[in-house]
Amino acid sequence: MLIGQSEVRGTEGVIRALNPATLKEIEPDFGAGSAADVHRACVLAEEAFDSYRESSLTTRARFLRTIGQGILDLGDTLVERTCAETGLLRSRVEGERNRTVGQLELFASVVSDGRWIGATLDSPQPDRKPQPRPDLRSRKIALGPIAVFGASNFPLAFSVAGGDTASALAAGCPVVVKAHSSHLGTSELVGRVIQHSVAACGLHPGVFSLLLGIGNTIGELLVKHPAIRGVGFTGSRNGGTSLMRIAAERPVPIPVYAEMSSINPILLFPQALKKNAHVIAKGFVDSITLGVGQFCTNPGVVVGLMGEGLEEFKRAAASEIATRIPATMLSPAIQSAYRQGIERLKSCRSVATLAEVSFSEKECLGAPALFTVTAKQFLANASLADEVFGPSSMMVECEGRDEMREVVERLPGQLTASLFVEGSDAEIARSLLPMLERKVGRIVCNGYPTGVEVSYAMVHGGPFPATSDSRTTSVGASAIERFLRPVCYQNTPVALLPSALQDSNPLNLPRLCDGKLKQP
Amino acid sequence: MLIGQSEVRGTEGVIRALNPATLKEIEPDFGAGSAADVHRACVLAEEAFDSYRESSLTTRARFLRTIGQGILDLGDTLVERTCAETGLLRSRVEGERNRTVGQLELFASVVSDGRWIGATLDSPQPDRKPQPRPDLRSRKIALGPIAVFGASNFPLAFSVAGGDTASALAAGCPVVVKAHSSHLGTSELVGRVIQHSVAACGLHPGVFSLLLGIGNTIGELLVKHPAIRGVGFTGSRNGGTSLMRIAAERPVPIPVYAEMSSINPILLFPQALKKNAHVIAKGFVDSITLGVGQFCTNPGVVVGLMGEGLEEFKRAAASEIATRIPATMLSPAIQSAYRQGIERLKSCRSVATLAEVSFSEKECLGAPALFTVTAKQFLANASLADEVFGPSSMMVECEGRDEMREVVERLPGQLTASLFVEGSDAEIARSLLPMLERKVGRIVCNGYPTGVEVSYAMVHGGPFPATSDSRTTSVGASAIERFLRPVCYQNTPVALLPSALQDSNPLNLPRLCDGKLKQP
Repeated sequence: MLIGQSEVRGTEGVIRALNPATLKEIEPDFGAGSAADVHRACVLAEEAFDSYRESSLTTRARFLRTIGQGILDLGDTLVERTCAETGLLRSRVEGERNRTVGQLELFASVVSDGRWIGATLDSPQPDRKPQPRPDLRSRKIALGPIAVFGASNFPLAFSVAGGDTASALAAGCPVVVKAHSSHLGTSELVGRVIQHSVAACGLHPGVFSLLLGIGNTIGELLVKHPAIRGVGFTGSRNGGTSLMRIAAERPVPIPVYAEMSSINPILLFPQALKKNAHVIAKGFVDSITLGVGQFCTNPGVVVGLMGEGLEEFKRAAASEIATRIPATMLSPAIQSAYRQGIERLKSCRSVATLAEVSFSEKECLGAPALFTVTAKQFLANASLADEVFGPSSMMVECEGRDEMREVVERLPGQLTASLFVEGSDAEIARSLLPMLERKVGRIVCNGYPTGVEVSYAMVHGGPFPATSDSRTTSVGASAIERFLRPVCYQNTPVALLPSALQDSNPLNLPRLCDGKLKQP
Repeated sequence: MLIGQSEVRGTEGVIRALNPATLKEIEPDFGAGSAADVHRACVLAEEAFDSYRESSLTTRARFLRTIGQGILDLGDTLVERTCAETGLLRSRVEGERNRTVGQLELFASVVSDGRWIGATLDSPQPDRKPQPRPDLRSRKIALGPIAVFGASNFPLAFSVAGGDTASALAAGCPVVVKAHSSHLGTSELVGRVIQHSVAACGLHPGVFSLLLGIGNTIGELLVKHPAIRGVGFTGSRNGGTSLMRIAAERPVPIPVYAEMSSINPILLFPQALKKNAHVIAKGFVDSITLGVGQFCTNPGVVVGLMGEGLEEFKRAAASEIATRIPATMLSPAIQSAYRQGIERLKSCRSVATLAEVSFSEKECLGAPALFTVTAKQFLANASLADEVFGPSSMMVECEGRDEMREVVERLPGQLTASLFVEGSDAEIARSLLPMLERKVGRIVCNGYPTGVEVSYAMVHGGPFPATSDSRTTSVGASAIERFLRPVCYQNTPVALLPSALQDSNPLNLPRLCDGKLKQP
């Protein structure tokens, strides 16, 4: 473990990563941490907080870029270890590494830009009656030390130096990461890069710590620790809701940003199918099998209107699936849950198997499966809307528009919804749009939900249970806002005013002055 | 009750408002609502949601201004009823009415300005490798129907058409208000103004409903109702934390914005006292007695360094308090809690009474009281930091700077902290500032926390237990952000794009284009 600038061997048992492709453990072993380790990391983070949140924008941007460069400098050492621990293809791991570095770069730009500070100045009105109006200025400051949980399915982009860490560090929050136990070596490599970057940028050692643990104990202690002021999590619904409960029951409750389960409906409209059924079906199978279906944006349900177009789509999707081969899943636990999910669907009398590729039970493999059900049967069985994490999907066939509306209405909150629309489809799509806006974070047209762009406009969020907090995104520039809170300064002399709010605007920030935005 | 455009007499018992000055009930009586009434109001709000959130910015601004004008048009009818139900002075009620109308006006400007929509556009990069970048656009939409609870101490500015209602309506959320049972007539008058404004602006009737109830049942049912997507509350810590718990335990948890207890420390530094002890003491007594101390920003604790300056302040404050007379409090329950709070302090051996004005137990009166305690005693007894709602305050006398720091460190989250600073005081003040920023929402220099300006830079918020959510403010323009969430549109054809995000920018909004802010 890395606690500040120290390297600490945990004494609460031994853990090893596993290669899911060979089912062999990978050296070295790691020591699991204790309550005392959690406490030490959190206290150190609290000590680092005041200096880190006031570090200059330049320093903080440099810090994020230094981490990014350090990750690139690890070269094949990192890529190979990540491939071994996850079974992911080298191309995928390299892509994820570039995305991780890109995220750090985006947040470096966001930090430098300074819009996130939300500097706001209201002029005093000393002669106003009955009372003079004071001089009021506000800015946003960091929330405090943040606990980040590594995600099993994103060993780089949503783990030690992933999106939650990057956005929290950008906001000025120290971070304590609980590594995911399935990629310990990857976590150590990236953790050391951050640890070195902290030192290289002259920051307080408590800005970053990395903890390891067996089971949920370390994570729970972390979320309960009084120094921790917020939580970033990507994982299962059980895990996320359990952290939400712990956080709400603290003497001082804290926000939890949990990105959990989603089945990402795809809606197929008649004109689009008439024109492109084969192309859409091929892209659909690519999307459900991408990364062996182990994405939170994996499309787990396809809703269409019965008819020739849908039949053609089904035939095309079925024959496309038959061309795919089993691939290694992230871990035996995920593989076993996927198998059970598929078996559960197969055991439903109302569910028909449209296509599947068989795969060995003994290896850690997964292969695609596509099921169909009528809308009536889907509506009669709420559990059919539960996520099956892996490369499977379910077609819901509707007799008409009203049934289609009813199916969509019944779905719980989602990260995304995708619409395939051509020409006159726009009319029915438009009638469904208000409902979709209420239900999802991102609406995709004529495309697939997998592949989450890291940019300014991205929203990777959505109503519960897709996430714990629909007001935020965990991907993209706005993710920084999750870790900020506003502070107002009334009639404060310049000697006590933060530089962001001084008259001369020494940081060259965009500022809202008496309600009008002024660019520097 | 007002449920949409209907007028409904509740059948679950009868309630009447009480005049705290005469202790006589005020006609007419009101019928308390049932679970069926809550359900009807919530379902109606849900029906109104999609059309109301897409109402034009012009219509919504006009709606808010129509409510403001309607409140002014009530003239003396409203002022007299509010005075009778609250015991507040006419000047205070008139001031609060103007503030309420000013809030509606501010949010009308905020709505028209359109910054709240957060329109963000990222250009597509069709030639990017390995994957093209899609066209991504995002905007913020309203959260959904909001439950607002009337506050006992702000019958206008934080009740039926108060800050929570104004900011939620501005965001595009229908509102269901649970009236505070101590000002039923005021609530009805203002509620009818909103009801008429809904009709006058051609909005869906479900945009606004007003419920009455006995005890907490109606409020709890409201927060539990699946149509409700957020809660605004100003009141006691018990009330607020109870709503937080109910909201967190829902099948779909929702955010609660509860503004609860705060003792708003005032820190007195030596140079300031040397120069101005008398003036500061006079202003302090004005602040603790304003509105009979019934403000969430009332300064309940004063921290100073022992010495001649502090002694002079104490003498001046004590003789100023002796000039004040008892005044009517909001309700017998509040008066009784105030009495008990004072008695509790008096019964502490470590607490000395510096000044008090006696008041009759039989009338609903309150009068100021000032206590002193040493820092050591204060630190030894955590309950001394509990809020006593009313015109009392406690001086905490410190032997040195370290003790002062320890006292401030010990205080839980607060809405405000005020510093009296002159010349060389700035040094010690600066050393305390980081801690204060972590602990409060607003830092006031050489002034008092009472009197919360409604403007762009105001932050009326702060860490728990001051509020349930330190990331927000309940006063000022940013309050609208509490009721919004982002939605992203990927590769969406113009026929399906909201006008805020169309290329031609038909709403003339400020928009973030590829990370650069463009003014219309």
